[in-house]
Amino acid sequence: MTQVSTAQAASTAQLASTAKALKCKECGAEYELKAQHVCELCFGPLEVKYDFSSLRFSVTRESIQAGPNSIWRYRQFLPVATDNYIDVGTGMTPLVRSQRLARRLGLKKLYIKNDAVNMPTLSFKDRVVSVALSRARELGFTTVSCASTGNLANSTAAIAAHAGLDCCVFIPSDLEAGKVLGSLIYSPTLMAVHGNYDQVNRLCSEVANTHGWGFVNINLRPYYSEGSKTLGYEVAEQLGWELPDHIVAPLASGSLFTKIYKGFKEFVEVGLVEDKKVRFSGAQAEGCSPIAEAFREKRDFIKPVKPNTIAKSIAIGNPADGVYAVDIANKTNGNIESVTDAEIIEGIKLLAETEGIFTETAGGTTVAVLKKLVEAGKIDPDETTVVYITGNGLKTQEAVQGYIGEPFTIEAKLDSFEQALERSRTLDRLEWQQVLV
Amino acid sequence: MTQVSTAQAASTAQLASTAKALKCKECGAEYELKAQHVCELCFGPLEVKYDFSSLRFSVTRESIQAGPNSIWRYRQFLPVATDNYIDVGTGMTPLVRSQRLARRLGLKKLYIKNDAVNMPTLSFKDRVVSVALSRARELGFTTVSCASTGNLANSTAAIAAHAGLDCCVFIPSDLEAGKVLGSLIYSPTLMAVHGNYDQVNRLCSEVANTHGWGFVNINLRPYYSEGSKTLGYEVAEQLGWELPDHIVAPLASGSLFTKIYKGFKEFVEVGLVEDKKVRFSGAQAEGCSPIAEAFREKRDFIKPVKPNTIAKSIAIGNPADGVYAVDIANKTNGNIESVTDAEIIEGIKLLAETEGIFTETAGGTTVAVLKKLVEAGKIDPDETTVVYITGNGLKTQEAVQGYIGEPFTIEAKLDSFEQALERSRTLDRLEWQQVLV
Repeated sequence: MTQVSTAQAASTAQLASTAKALKCKECGAEYELKAQHVCELCFGPLEVKYDFSSLRFSVTRESIQAGPNSIWRYRQFLPVATDNYIDVGTGMTPLVRSQRLARRLGLKKLYIKNDAVNMPTLSFKDRVVSVALSRARELGFTTVSCASTGNLANSTAAIAAHAGLDCCVFIPSDLEAGKVLGSLIYSPTLMAVHGNYDQVNRLCSEVANTHGWGFVNINLRPYYSEGSKTLGYEVAEQLGWELPDHIVAPLASGSLFTKIYKGFKEFVEVGLVEDKKVRFSGAQAEGCSPIAEAFREKRDFIKPVKPNTIAKSIAIGNPADGVYAVDIANKTNGNIESVTDAEIIEGIKLLAETEGIFTETAGGTTVAVLKKLVEAGKIDPDETTVVYITGNGLKTQEAVQGYIGEPFTIEAKLDSFEQALERSRTLDRLEWQQVLV
Repeated sequence: MTQVSTAQAASTAQLASTAKALKCKECGAEYELKAQHVCELCFGPLEVKYDFSSLRFSVTRESIQAGPNSIWRYRQFLPVATDNYIDVGTGMTPLVRSQRLARRLGLKKLYIKNDAVNMPTLSFKDRVVSVALSRARELGFTTVSCASTGNLANSTAAIAAHAGLDCCVFIPSDLEAGKVLGSLIYSPTLMAVHGNYDQVNRLCSEVANTHGWGFVNINLRPYYSEGSKTLGYEVAEQLGWELPDHIVAPLASGSLFTKIYKGFKEFVEVGLVEDKKVRFSGAQAEGCSPIAEAFREKRDFIKPVKPNTIAKSIAIGNPADGVYAVDIANKTNGNIESVTDAEIIEGIKLLAETEGIFTETAGGTTVAVLKKLVEAGKIDPDETTVVYITGNGLKTQEAVQGYIGEPFTIEAKLDSFEQALERSRTLDRLEWQQVLV
């Protein structure tokens, strides 16, 4: 860190926004707004503390709507001091009112928050990276980095390229081809580590201590994670400045879940929406479900696991914010559920066939858990329910290959087409017969 | 067509919007607004004719801005009669002010219209399909179809799934894996035809005549192609209600090019922007450049070619609107240029490294042509130039695989990382030395 301390001191002074300090979530100790993520006293995680008192008068629904069509319309709620933030159009993704999936599940008011088309790299990670790299630049970092299951590496490499920052990203060596290529294309230094995400993360913690780089999800984590709050703000705004009754979101580290919660709370605090009890339900893959297990067993601690699932983007065996996620599910009368890899694939297909949205394995997990919760009577059909789709299916093509059928290969002749069409109709009939049996 | 004539008659009557007739681009003959794309008298292509006279008073910049954040904010300019259009958030993609690519090329005011993040399927085709399927539903079609080089199939399958329409799509059998899977996931009937796009297209014309389906780019083509006008409207709006000086767009059939032109003209006609001479330049891949050849040889007709290029999405050997594209380039003092497959790959990498935007081969073609035109002095550095990026690189991963380097594979240990970092720095130095030599 020594390399950047002068730059940090210089720019911290400019932070005239509502962000006031870093505060330990456990003991409450406070620190200045620098690149630090762990409390020196109790080793608890640090979070950005704001003073929103001035916002109750200066920020209105109208002032937000007049802002940019991106996460930066909520700039007063984000820990970036200057106007020199990086805006690549991230955020303000559609909140789709579901018709066909809702009918299939028997829900009356289902909405899909679709970050599978987030900009620029098609996952919710563009939100956290936009915030982290904007802050990194303010703190004087010239090289940025991350430990990633793929989406974060894509996003960090792309936004660093846009901003002209040097970039070195770390991934497990067994990732999907689309996620590897989706980083390499931006020309970062890409380190593929033999090991799972938790091992990659440990290595990165060491590198962060020796190289003075800005690791978006390590030493910049308090800023980075605040970007996820925008998934709360946007849903509230897009519902016509109201909170939903129930949300379902995927759980990896648990951070996204806690930040949606924080986003809703902050909007209530400054008077932008009415207070309301929102139920929070979380989704994990059975092959990596330490948070769902803790919830089921009513524990207040997480037992780390070794991941073994196709849902690699959420396969974090030792989730940093797991206990906070359990706490939120409990106190909001929500649930945390896990599904098998087969159910995840079915979830991906179900969303594509009913809504025309192609999501990656994490989204398949969330849809499958949504279905499971509805079937178990744990979501009321009358609840306004929002399901968070966090990434795009084109990045994890391997997961569904072999489960979605094949094209009919034909000659460029009418009779060859007619024969294939007849075959396809026979197959459809067979499928229906199977359903009826 | 007989199967749908009653439904057509019923809903045509409702068309109280500004769309008035189908009109032949060659002989001017007019037809009612049904599913027809060719003039019965001269076999010329039909286009939608409007009466915009009422719009000069009823449509303002403010009324458009108050509309949905999608192409449907321009609904009065589109050939859809009812309010029951299909809005899946298509359009209003970012117009990015380029910093790093602009510097690299020596341009002062370069903008990137980024449809690589268009919704729902990450290409500009979502625009034309949203319009075509909305109109198909009005005309009473229950099965929709298309001949496609990939992106159109993805879009038709996805939006049909969302709208609950039956869907059968036709593609050449040698398409990129991402484009095949990117259709299959939505469960259409998918026909992979042995042959190139032009052969697929001919087969589909026969099927359209026998099955009474709505082929978005055949019998629905007059409606479908109008969707591309929104790429003109949005750029004008996003530039602050001004037209650019110069645009560069890819040429496949040539339709997109002519419709951006039409979009600009219409905005001038209704008084939304000032008139201005906009230069139109087009981009083709050398392995399929019948339009660029006609332009170079100052011909007013197209000689069809057999495509042989990695830029499959724009590989149309017999482009339907090729002559109109040549005409526009000529009369606006623009250019039409082609680039090699190697230049296309460099174009993809250049855009990714400088702007953090990962485009498919069509976008690589456009960026490479932009570069070539600048180097040839055919774009003035002071011109406000807009380059259209029309699709996402995750769908054509094969094209860049092998040209973007490999990750450094390391153990989860600090010394393994340090060695790799040293190697990467040596490689960087070597690269610089090569540049300097």
